[in-house]
Formats: sequence, structure tokens, C-alpha cells
Amino acid sequence: MDTTIQTLGPAKIPSPIKRYKESTHYKAFISDEKRVVIDLDYHHLNDLFLDRKDVPSFELAGPRENVYFDTSKLRCAIVTCGGLCPGLNDIIRSVVLELNYSYQVKSIYGIRYGLRGFIPEFGHDVMELTPREVGNIHEMGGSILGSSRGPQAIDEIIDCLERMNIGVLFMTGGDGTLKAAIKIADEISNRGLKISVIGIPKTIDNDIYMVSRSFGFDTAVDVATMAIRSAHNEARGYPNGIGLIKLMGRHSGFIAATASLAQQDVNFVLIPEVDFDLKGENGFLTHLEKRLKQSYHAVVVVAEGAGQNIFEIFEEGHKDYDESGNVRLHDIGQFLKEAIKDHFNSLNIPISLKYIDPSYMIRSLPANSNDRVFCSFLGRNAVHAAMAGKTKLSIGNWNNQFVHVPINLSVSQRKHVDPNDKLWLGVLDATGQGAMKNFNEDSD
Amino acid sequence: MDTTIQTLGPAKIPSPIKRYKESTHYKAFISDEKRVVIDLDYHHLNDLFLDRKDVPSFELAGPRENVYFDTSKLRCAIVTCGGLCPGLNDIIRSVVLELNYSYQVKSIYGIRYGLRGFIPEFGHDVMELTPREVGNIHEMGGSILGSSRGPQAIDEIIDCLERMNIGVLFMTGGDGTLKAAIKIADEISNRGLKISVIGIPKTIDNDIYMVSRSFGFDTAVDVATMAIRSAHNEARGYPNGIGLIKLMGRHSGFIAATASLAQQDVNFVLIPEVDFDLKGENGFLTHLEKRLKQSYHAVVVVAEGAGQNIFEIFEEGHKDYDESGNVRLHDIGQFLKEAIKDHFNSLNIPISLKYIDPSYMIRSLPANSNDRVFCSFLGRNAVHAAMAGKTKLSIGNWNNQFVHVPINLSVSQRKHVDPNDKLWLGVLDATGQGAMKNFNEDSD
Amino acid sequence: MDTTIQTLGPAKIPSPIKRYKESTHYKAFISDEKRVVIDLDYHHLNDLFLDRKDVPSFELAGPRENVYFDTSKLRCAIVTCGGLCPGLNDIIRSVVLELNYSYQVKSIYGIRYGLRGFIPEFGHDVMELTPREVGNIHEMGGSILGSSRGPQAIDEIIDCLERMNIGVLFMTGGDGTLKAAIKIADEISNRGLKISVIGIPKTIDNDIYMVSRSFGFDTAVDVATMAIRSAHNEARGYPNGIGLIKLMGRHSGFIAATASLAQQDVNFVLIPEVDFDLKGENGFLTHLEKRLKQSYHAVVVVAEGAGQNIFEIFEEGHKDYDESGNVRLHDIGQFLKEAIKDHFNSLNIPISLKYIDPSYMIRSLPANSNDRVFCSFLGRNAVHAAMAGKTKLSIGNWNNQFVHVPINLSVSQRKHVDPNDKLWLGVLDATGQGAMKNFNEDSD
Amino acid sequence: MDTTIQTLGPAKIPSPIKRYKESTHYKAFISDEKRVVIDLDYHHLNDLFLDRKDVPSFELAGPRENVYFDTSKLRCAIVTCGGLCPGLNDIIRSVVLELNYSYQVKSIYGIRYGLRGFIPEFGHDVMELTPREVGNIHEMGGSILGSSRGPQAIDEIIDCLERMNIGVLFMTGGDGTLKAAIKIADEISNRGLKISVIGIPKTIDNDIYMVSRSFGFDTAVDVATMAIRSAHNEARGYPNGIGLIKLMGRHSGFIAATASLAQQDVNFVLIPEVDFDLKGENGFLTHLEKRLKQSYHAVVVVAEGAGQNIFEIFEEGHKDYDESGNVRLHDIGQFLKEAIKDHFNSLNIPISLKYIDPSYMIRSLPANSNDRVFCSFLGRNAVHAAMAGKTKLSIGNWNNQFVHVPINLSVSQRKHVDPNDKLWLGVLDATGQGAMKNFNEDSD
Repeated sequence: MDTTIQTLGPAKIPSPIKRYKESTHYKAFISDEKRVVIDLDYHHLNDLFLDRKDVPSFELAGPRENVYFDTSKLRCAIVTCGGLCPGLNDIIRSVVLELNYSYQVKSIYGIRYGLRGFIPEFGHDVMELTPREVGNIHEMGGSILGSSRGPQAIDEIIDCLERMNIGVLFMTGGDGTLKAAIKIADEISNRGLKISVIGIPKTIDNDIYMVSRSFGFDTAVDVATMAIRSAHNEARGYPNGIGLIKLMGRHSGFIAATASLAQQDVNFVLIPEVDFDLKGENGFLTHLEKRLKQSYHAVVVVAEGAGQNIFEIFEEGHKDYDESGNVRLHDIGQFLKEAIKDHFNSLNIPISLKYIDPSYMIRSLPANSNDRVFCSFLGRNAVHAAMAGKTKLSIGNWNNQFVHVPINLSVSQRKHVDPNDKLWLGVLDATGQGAMKNFNEDSD
Repeated sequence: MDTTIQTLGPAKIPSPIKRYKESTHYKAFISDEKRVVIDLDYHHLNDLFLDRKDVPSFELAGPRENVYFDTSKLRCAIVTCGGLCPGLNDIIRSVVLELNYSYQVKSIYGIRYGLRGFIPEFGHDVMELTPREVGNIHEMGGSILGSSRGPQAIDEIIDCLERMNIGVLFMTGGDGTLKAAIKIADEISNRGLKISVIGIPKTIDNDIYMVSRSFGFDTAVDVATMAIRSAHNEARGYPNGIGLIKLMGRHSGFIAATASLAQQDVNFVLIPEVDFDLKGENGFLTHLEKRLKQSYHAVVVVAEGAGQNIFEIFEEGHKDYDESGNVRLHDIGQFLKEAIKDHFNSLNIPISLKYIDPSYMIRSLPANSNDRVFCSFLGRNAVHAAMAGKTKLSIGNWNNQFVHVPINLSVSQRKHVDPNDKLWLGVLDATGQGAMKNFNEDSD
Repeated sequence: MDTTIQTLGPAKIPSPIKRYKESTHYKAFISDEKRVVIDLDYHHLNDLFLDRKDVPSFELAGPRENVYFDTSKLRCAIVTCGGLCPGLNDIIRSVVLELNYSYQVKSIYGIRYGLRGFIPEFGHDVMELTPREVGNIHEMGGSILGSSRGPQAIDEIIDCLERMNIGVLFMTGGDGTLKAAIKIADEISNRGLKISVIGIPKTIDNDIYMVSRSFGFDTAVDVATMAIRSAHNEARGYPNGIGLIKLMGRHSGFIAATASLAQQDVNFVLIPEVDFDLKGENGFLTHLEKRLKQSYHAVVVVAEGAGQNIFEIFEEGHKDYDESGNVRLHDIGQFLKEAIKDHFNSLNIPISLKYIDPSYMIRSLPANSNDRVFCSFLGRNAVHAAMAGKTKLSIGNWNNQFVHVPINLSVSQRKHVDPNDKLWLGVLDATGQGAMKNFNEDSD
Repeated sequence: MDTTIQTLGPAKIPSPIKRYKESTHYKAFISDEKRVVIDLDYHHLNDLFLDRKDVPSFELAGPRENVYFDTSKLRCAIVTCGGLCPGLNDIIRSVVLELNYSYQVKSIYGIRYGLRGFIPEFGHDVMELTPREVGNIHEMGGSILGSSRGPQAIDEIIDCLERMNIGVLFMTGGDGTLKAAIKIADEISNRGLKISVIGIPKTIDNDIYMVSRSFGFDTAVDVATMAIRSAHNEARGYPNGIGLIKLMGRHSGFIAATASLAQQDVNFVLIPEVDFDLKGENGFLTHLEKRLKQSYHAVVVVAEGAGQNIFEIFEEGHKDYDESGNVRLHDIGQFLKEAIKDHFNSLNIPISLKYIDPSYMIRSLPANSNDRVFCSFLGRNAVHAAMAGKTKLSIGNWNNQFVHVPINLSVSQRKHVDPNDKLWLGVLDATGQGAMKNFNEDSD
């Protein structure tokens, strides 16, 4: 695993933080030599060190004693891409305040509407970002810069950076954005430019590899918890009440699993990482039936990417639930809603099913206190890394440390809920849902 | 308008409140003679009084000096029916505490799962309700008694009341429940029984006639506001961003209108009381198009019962949106979502539409402080009315006064948003949406 | 009671709202003749009308068909005075948006830091208020204009208004501010100027006469509820646990009484309107002692102005609690804290007393949804009244109607909790605290 | 550093979790051999491993394949001690649910009111804790068991455990409680009893050594943030407005520092770990004066244990602020309030100072989602450790891992904010407060 961080060149200029804070005997500069191990396991480490093998480690984030840029002349840009996520404004605010107050960078531009903002044909203005402009934006959700989805021509983006004479580009976005950041950094290098590209990984699903926690996730869980609370009340409120909540999580079930632990009223959590059968003696519907018999109500949380194995089954010919078209087939929430209704209908058991999809409410609200603190560190560390002339890196958090992760590594694969690790086992304990995989392959 | 309140018989027994609170020189007993006028208009009143016409007025709620029941022997029941609503537990709690502490009634039964709880075949237990049992229930949403929808045999309900020797039945529920309450009270009367039936109108939509405010509504607006806030962030977050929120309101748009005033980021509010055209030069889509051109984003709030006139048009032959069946046709939220997409698609204008349906989250969360206070008064006044031997009445709130409203009157029609009154005019001011009715009938 | 509203002169210019909204067939104009009665009592009204006596009524607020000002040339000012209160920014926002969008008034100035902002020697800038400037201010607490306490020279204020060529001055503030408004309006009249002065009464204590509800109060109760919840947990958390909460309310106990009803965990509510004895067989300490014996914990809410009779007693010679000086004597919270400790100490009963004073947290947070809606109406109606050339009035809310209240009337006396009305009786029911007045005068 | 965990004896009985979950192919058992390193620094680790020195590591928490107790016969007790903290009920709930559902332990007793609950003379009942009893307690703040402060006779505690035939005692509490736990465990060992003692460290100040995060802290920061938000509004609301907030933190400033980062409106943070001078050219008052001159308002956060160096100075003779006695001297909040007033008074600069002490509100509210999840893991891991026969350990969280920390180690010293680490440096960045230490020793 290559965790080496690229730089634009040697950092030779004494940090303005140093001058600025001389009187405080600032002892906080972090050397590039300072690294933290990735795997904490004592025995693994023992073996690796004694065998003199490569021990995976990350460079620690933080302010460097010397910087690469002459910050008095530096112009920086920041762009937010992809879906909204609580904390975007906090990141913007933190970057702007750190650049301005600690590094005396006065020219900071906000690129509007994601990567589109670089492209002349869209004609979006840039925003000048000052401490006054960003002063209260953390009270608001969304991104004051706006965002957009999808790629744009890398060449045009770099043309724009050149025209604007930008020295550092801060990009916050998900998988696609980070991949674009790699291309941008590579093309910058090809052109022989000296522009640092710093990524701040954004994924409300918390599924970025080598980033143990991403910003906005804690807030997302907070809001998801409220939805579960409602669903529980609806379920208990009626005979054979069922509360079904669809939560975000296309590829990983972190929100579903964590929110279920926060509001421990959930009986079934279905996530992409753990296949389940719908029917058959060990299938979800049978378990749900048992639960209703025993407790008269049930709460089910499903991540939007769960149950893909079921859809595959149906796509291969079992068309009984497939009549209403593709939308239904790919929307596990709506699909389960119908499947549950049909199941109990066929058994002549009246149920009261309430379906809750908090959807965009989860990602558009302002960040909570925890995420605000987290974002303030991400933003500051992004600035520190950029000033030191580092590039093509993303700011990660691993073992509670802020670290420099090469963007290539971040996007090399996704992070998933490990069915054998404490989060999922906690869910199994909290729900008592057991395994819902039917080992008779002729289950359906 | 007949506002006369029925009684089981004369109230001759000195109120236990009197004995209980003798030392405090309790001056709060309300005479049945105490009435408050319904219409506040000075000139109307002047005319009516001078013409010696009947001036509509309500009997004021509150404790009576004499009660009908021997409360030491009284057994009471309480039932919650229909959809959940914030405050149900507060109502239960208030009724139980007032009965127990002020009137020394110790036998209070909670009927489980709405009217079903009376019917032997369902086999639901009753809950004994004590101050300890209800102590913390206001912290929870839903109803600790559970609820159910739909009618049950009136005879069986009364058989159950007789078997349990119930003297007062408190019923909280919507239109259907209040109509059932009338039938129950009438049949009680037919059988010559002395059972008081007291209704506490429940309607999250706030649409009960002669009840200016219903419990849970304030909380509903709170949660709806959060959804609008999210939608606004989503709308601003993308080029041509549109946030579309569907809110409760089958027959009246109170939640939609009020929440739009609370979170004044809304550009269009569509409610059942105000028809609008979808297409044409004065249609909603044209206005939305103009708004996007001007401001690049828009927030639309639609009450679930809005736009029925559009569906009628489609049903009469315009079938282009009607293909996906009835569900879609009647779901104005999904319908508008598709209609907006199709419209801008046909104009080759890319948009970013986010649809939010907070649905059950709005009705299942605990009541906020305002609703808690309100519910505590409703519950107490329901108890006062019952103890005085009154029956077939509901506790209403009119001109900020708690009053006795004959149930017959409550269910005689619905309350609606008046398009010429301050609430809707406030919405027009706040949104600037103007009229979206196209007076050319060939609009489409 | 004189409820006549003064005007600057006849309103002859057709309202710009009319022109602006012609297409919507705006039917909402309110005639000055439209009045609503103040007392709702049927029998009182009957007597008054039949005796052809003066029936007290208020002029209804709302848009007038004709306006006094040529709004295209009008310049308006708004100032916020006195203590902070949730909703100040909502009022500012509502006034600005209504002036700008409905009446096309483009010159709106925010006076900084209360009345000081008018006075040259302080040198405060004014803020130009535009829709963009006020767009998001409702998300923030406090007042974007700032505030200050205390009077300023009326002459200088009016000089400033003249210099700035202001036609309407919107003032929000408490008793003192409203009295200043009267003087300003009178001096304007003396000078023969045509400046409308419109008051929007602000009092977090909800104690303004003839205003049944003031903005910010609902939010204040929300936050106070949280403090009570904490106190209850602290009280239950320890043997003989006592939670003592001091809430705002110098002259009236509305916050204390209402919050106690919202979070019904309170055992004693002490307010300025209801004297109590500290000691003696019917004194507060004796009741508290009984409560602890019975339930092992107690929650006490005290309004800051409660118990003045006790201080008077001490001031007349009973100095045993008076040693620590004036501060303690006038701070009922700290005083009770010490008195309770001393009492149980002298009885050798160990207690665990927790004192909570949420103080400024109650008035500095953003308004909740309910207050936001309320403020939006207050602001709009203030604008309507001003445009019609009315002056020296305040916008009130009475019997759920927005009305014009002459400022003279608002400040003629204070509103108090009526010990014989439903709010206080509700508190007595909810707490079971009974009377704590000892009728033996030798109580101490 | 001795991180060895003691046991009651070998764990030979197959875990009931195994039997219970056989069908799920439970792979989550953690071996006692599984350890995680404490220090993550690559170079430190390299040196230690290569020099074959002792590398500090913790035993990983989690379910063991074999247990020590016959859980079908086991009786467990749980006690909560010391000050309230958000999450106590979540811990109780998690312990009870895990014991009951995963390990089939049906006899679980809640000891009332902390250590007092063991002592016969107080006569407190125990509570039987069942899943039903603890079902909703996480919605409430405080502890359903109650708590108390101070030590009790160890002998009597163990007598009680013997009488009740308790096999596992779960104790949650702070420093004093953990020290009592050590004594209890030692005396159990002396008596030859087989009772496991498991500590769950509780400290809202987050200052327990070798525990990087303690439960309730995240919620505390949330509430503290609200207080800062209020203070900021008050400060901006008046000319020369100063908002002064006292937050918890007797020995460490984690809440003050973290909340200041969450709500980045703070200009000065004063914590116990960083001395400051009050007066003199580099003193706090001088800095505050500069801040007011420049920005016209200021927000100051002070941890309750800050500024002890100042009190020492005063105690040595500088008595000008010392007149009002001990309370004032040790209460840095009140002290600063007076000192600031006096300072600006002496300069004839009028200020508007608002003092906010959210005090108990911070520790008595229910836990937020993040803390709920955290508590659920703490509780579960406490149960796993106990069932395996481990004792005298506390459940810690280090580098994001749940680990077994010998109680002796937890109480060996306190954790402090490191003035050279990222938290405090983040605060310095966010506030720009610089150093306020005056290096002229004759400063005063």
C-alpha cells in the first residue's frame, strides 16, 4: 500500500503561522517524518517490524514549519461537488478562516455549482470568500457555493485555474470528485504547473476507503434516528404495526446500522453488505411474521442498496413482483413495502404498514456540533497540507488521527460494513434479527 | 347553529375539587351560564343583539361547582382512534392526572388499539392507567394505548362499556371517531344508560369545524418546517434546483400554509382550497419556469389533497400522465414530480429536482412544548365536562377560549383555509406566487 | 377605554398592493370600520349592547385599500430596543420583505443599537436593509441591528428622523420603548411632521397589557421547558433531590406557569402575582418538606420577580437571611437556594439541591416555528398600518386577532397572571402545590 | 505501564452467545491474545519492537468464546454513582439487554442512589431490571437508578453483594467510584469471593486517563454549544457586548475547548491547563479590551477550573477582589464577571456583560445519537468482559477501539488538554486569542 504523499517541490519558506504566533512559543509544527501506523494489532505489528517488512502508516496531518507557497501572493479556490452533505459550509468556513487568519491568504475564490463552475459555457460567477462572507454559514445546511454532479472536461478546468492564477484547489466531493481530482493533479503535473490539489472526501454513506469517518455522517445518523423513532411509534400504534424506514447507503450500510444502534427500537436492519432471502423458512418475511406473532409490531430499517441479490433473482425470471416496472425493482424500499403487504395479504393477516423515507432531509440540514468540530479540523488540515506544497492527497481520519491519504488510495476501493466486526454484531445483538439467509437454495 | 350541550342529568354533588382545595378559596368554578360569543365582529354583534336575534355562543369549559357523578365510585375509559398525532400521550396523561388527583377517580382504563379494543373477538387487554403509568409518556410520540382505523359495531362497544361499568368514555379521534361518538352517545341514551361521552377532536390537518386549533398541529408545523429547510438547501445547492415537499392536508392546507410562513423560503404553496392550472400561460409550470429563470432555484410545497381539479381534467381524457395507474393519479406529490420533470425535459432545460415526503415523521414525534400545554388544558377540560355529567360534546378552542362544542356541530362540516383570510394572504405575500389560475379555459 | 387610532391624515392613494396584485382579485383589504370586541362574554356583551353603552373593541389590523404615503418615495426606519427576545430578526425580516415586495418601498434603514443609533455622538452607522440582507437572518438569534437600553433625547431622535427624511419608524421594544414611542409621536406631531410611529411590543415575559401574546414567548417556554427537564432529572437522581429553576418574569409569571404546564414535572411554581410565605405551617419550606417526605424529590420553579413580600419582611427587620447583602436579597433564586439549604440543614435532613438559571439562553436563541409565523404577521401588519398613515399604535394580538392597539393603552398598565384564571388553576392542578399562604400572621 | 487484566479464574464454559447464535456462524469472538497498541507513532513503535522492549498495548474488548459464569444461574447488579451524565440510562439499558438477550441472565438488580443503595441503614429498595423496565429509558435524562456522592463502607457493600448472591457488579462513576471499585475488588479477593467488578468510567469532563473519550461528552458539547450561541447573540446585540459562559471542567478544559470549536464565535477560551494573567500588558483584560476596541463585542468561555493561578495570587495578599468570601473566590465565572466589570468601569468604558452558566442543563439531558451508540457498545463490552470472568477492569476507548483498561491505570492520573496538541491549537486558531501570559512577573 503506497501511502507516499506527493509535493510540488521543497517547502523552504518559514510558515507565516510561525511569525504570526511567535509569542506563543508555538510547538505544534508536525514533521513530515511523523507517521502513524494503520493497523493497531500488536501481533501483526510485532511480526512486521521484526521481519523488517513494510509497516503501513500514514503521514500525520498538521501545520508544517516551512511552507511551499509565498502565501502573501497566493490565490486559492474551493469547490464542492456531488450530493449535499451536512458540514459542507463548515468545511468552506474552516478553509477560509485558516487561510485568511493563519496564513494571511486574502484571495480565496468559491467556485459555484461544482465542477461546472470552472467551465466558461455555464457562465457561473465565482464568489469571493472572506471571513465576513463565511461568518455565519455554518448555521445553514447545504453549500453556499452550490454543487453539481457529473464530470467536466479536465482541460477546461485547468485552463480556468491557470487563467485565475490559482495556486491551491480544495475539492470536496465523493468518489467521482476524488477521481477527477487525480486527473486534474496529473494534468497539472503534465503542464508543469505548480498547483496543489487537496481533496476533502465527502460521503454521507461513510464508505470511503481508508477514511474511518467522513464528515456529515454523525449528523446523518442524528436525523435518521428521528425517522426510526417515528417508525417505532407508528409500529407500536397499531395492531400488527410495521414501521419500514429506507435510509441512505448505496454500497454500505453504515447509516442504517449506526442509527439502529442509536435508537434501539429496530428489529431488522437490511444492508448491502449482508445478503438476505426474502422468502423461504429463513427468509426475511418469515422472520417478520414470527416477530409480529410474538410482539405484535416490528420496525425494519433498509439501506437503499440492500437486497440486490433479490432483484437479481427476480431479474432471472421470477417476475411475480416485477410487474410495475424498473423503478420498483430497483427501489428496495418500495419493493419491500409491496412484498410485505403481499405476503401478509396472502396469509390473511391484516397489518398496518407505514413507510418512511427521510431521503434528502438527512443530507441537507446543518451539521451538528460533533460534525462541526470535525469539519473545522478537516478544513484546517487541508490548508496546512496545501501550504506545505503537498498535492494529490486527501485529508483522512484514521484511528482518531487526521492523516494525509494519497487520493489514489482513497478511491482504490470502497469501505464496507464488516459483517464480522463490532458494528454489525452490535446490530445483531440490538435487533436479535439473526441470520435471514436460507441455506436451502430452492427457497423461493 | 345549535350549541346546546346535553347532560346525563342534573349535577347536584359538590365538586370534589371544592373539598380537595377548600383551603385555597378556589374561585375558579365556571357556571354553565358563562358563554362566549363565536363571531367577534363588533357590527355583526351590534346588529344581532339589537335585533334580539340569536347570537351564536359557546358554553365555556372549566370545572363546575357541582358534579353529576359520585367520583369515588366512578370508572372511566379512554380510547385513541385513527392516525397518530403529536400529543395523544399528553391528552391521556392529562385526563388520568386530572381524574386521579382532582376528582379522586381511581379506576381509569385505557382501551387498546382504538375502537377494536372494545370488541371481544380481537381479544385486546385493557390497560389500567395510574399516575405512575402515565408519568413519562409525554416524552414519547404515538399513543401508549395504540390506535386503529375504521368503525366497529356500536352495540358491541356499548356492551363492553356496560360490562366494564364505565361511567365516562373519553374518545380522541378525527371525523370518523367523532361520528362514532355521536352514535355511541345516542345508543347509550336509547338504552337508558348514564354514560358520558366526551370527544377530544384530533386532526393533524387542523380541519375540524368550529375548532380553531387542534392539538398536534403546532408540532406538525415544526417538523414540516425542517423538511422545507432541507428542500431549500437542496434547491439552492444545484443549478435550476427545485425542492418539492409534500405535506399532510387531505382536505385543507393549514400545515402547508403555516409551515411556509414559518420557513419563508417557499416560492409556491399548493393547497386543496385553491385550484390551480398545471399548464397554460397562468399555470403552475409556467410560473415555476419564470421563477427558475429569475432566481435559478425554487421551493414548492404541496398539500396532499391539492390539485384535485387537475386529476379531474386528466380523468376526462387527457391521459398523457395517467398511464401508471390510480396511485400516481391521486398522489399529487409524485404526480407533480413527474410533471415538472417532463415539462423541463420538453424544454431542454436541465433541472435538479429533489422530492421530500416527511409523511409519518410529522405525526409520530412527541409534542412540542406549546402542544403539551394545549393538550394539558384539553384533557383537564374534558374531565371537568364529564364530571359535570355533560355528554356528546367535544372540547374545542375558539378565540383562544376552551369551549364545549356539541359533537354534532364539530362534524357538520370541515374547516378550510379561507383564500381571502390572513393566513393565505400571508402566504401570497411570503411566496409572491400570485394567482396560477388560467382564465382561458383552453389553457391546456 | 379609548381604542381610537390616530392617523397622519386621510389615506387617499390606492394601495400598491392593489395594483401589484390586481390579477389575483385581492379581496383582503380591511376597512377601518372593521372592529372586534375585546370582551367575549355573551352576557356582558348583551348588557352593553342593549344598554347602548360603549362596547370595547379594537380596530382590526390588515391591509387597507388606500394608503397615506406615496410608497415609491417613502423611506422607512426600524429599530430594536431593550433586551433580546427570540423573533427580533423575524420581525425585521417581515417588515423589510413586506415593505419591499408588497409596497415597493426600497429605502429601508436599520438603526443600530436601539435608540442610541439615532444619536450622533455614538456614531453608529445605519444598515441598509434589503431582501438579500435579511434573507437568512431568521436562522439566527438576537437582533442583527443590535439593541441598547435606556432613554435617549427625544429631540435628537426626531432630528435624526428629519435629517434622514424618514416617513415611518418601526420600533420594537418593551414598556420603556413604547413610552418613548409615545413621546416621539407627540413631538413629531408638535413639529408638524408627517412621520408614522408604529410599535411592535416586545416582552419575553408576555406582560404587555391588552396584548394576549407577545412574540418570543413561545420560544422562551420551549427553552425553559428544557431547563425544567434537567432539573427534574437532577431531582430524581439523588436522595432528597431538589431541582430549583429560576425563570424570567420580573412582574408576571407567564413563562414560569406555562413552562410548568409544558413539562409537568414541577411541584411548586412561585410567581410574582401570588404571594407566599417562606416559613410557618403553610409556608413554602414546610410544603417542600412534606413533598420530600412523601416523594423523595421535588422540582421548584421560581419567576425572578416572585417572593417580593418575603424581601419586604426581611427588610423590615427580620435580618437572619439578609447578611450577604443586597444582591442576595433581591435575587429570589439565590435567596431560595440558601433558604432551602438552611432549612433542611437546621432539620438535619441532607438534601441534594441543584440550582439552574438558564437566564440569557432563553432570550437569545432563534425563534421556533410558531413564533416565526407569529412574527411574520406582526411585521406585515405593522407595515399595513404604517402605509395607511396610522400612527402611535402598536400591533397587538387579542382573541387570536391581530389588532391595532393605541400605544397609550399598551403602556397604561401591565398584564398579569390572574390567580383565578385557567392558567394558574392549571398550574395548581398540575403541581398540586395548594396555597402556601399562612393566614396566621405570626407565621415567622 | 501494566495493562494486564485480572480474572476470577479460567473461562471454560462455552459462551451462551455461541449456542444462541450458532446458526449465524458467529465469527466475532475475540481472543484474549488480541491486543492493540496504545502509541501509534511509527518511529516509536519501530524502536520499541526492534529493541524488543515492552510495547504498551490494551486487550481488545468483545465477546469471548468461553465464559467463566454459568449464566443461567448468575445474578448481576448495576450501580450509577456521582454526578449525572448524559447516557447513564443508555448504559443501564445496554447492560440489561445484553445480559438478558445474549447471555440469558434474568436476575439483574439496579442498586438505588449510588453506593448508598448497598448500605442497610438507608433502606433503599433495589430495582429489578428487565428488558421491559428499561425499554424506553434512553429517552430520559438522568439515571433511573438515581445516584449519590461520597464513599460508603466497603465491607458493608460486599456484605450486601454476598447477601444478594451477586456474581457481577457493574459500576459507572468517576474517579472516586473507580477507586471504590478497586477497593471492592480487592476486598472481594481477600474474602475469596468470585465476584467480578467492572467499571464504566463516567466523566462529563472527559478527563479520565487512558480513556480518549467518555460517554456523555458529545452531548455535553452539544448543549454547551447552545449556550455559546446565546452568548454570541447577546454580545453582538449590544455596544461593547460581552458574552461570558462558564462551562464544566474542574481539572480539564475539554468541554470548553471542543464547544468553542463547534460554535466558532468564541474569542477567548480559558481552561485549567493553560494559566493566564488577569491584568498586565499581556493579561486577559488587556486582550479583551483590544478585542472590544476592534470588534465591539466579545465572547469568552471559561472552564470552571480555569484561572486557579489567579486565585493563588489573590490569596497571597491581593485582596481587592476577595471581599465577598470563598464562594466568589473559587467561582471563576462570577469572579471574571466582576473583574471584567471593574476593569471597564475603571476605564469608563460602558460594557454590556451577559453571564451564562448552563450548569446542570449540560449533564441532565438525554444522550444524543452519537452518545447512545457509544453507550450501547460500552454496556455490551462491559457485559462481555464480566461474563469472561474478568474483573477490576474498566471499559475504555482508545484509538477508536473498545479496550480493557485495568481500573488502577484509569485512576492513576487525569487526562488533560495538551496545550501543544491539535485540540488546543485548533482553539488558538479559531479564537485568535494568542498567549495571555505576561512574562513580566511584576505584571500585577
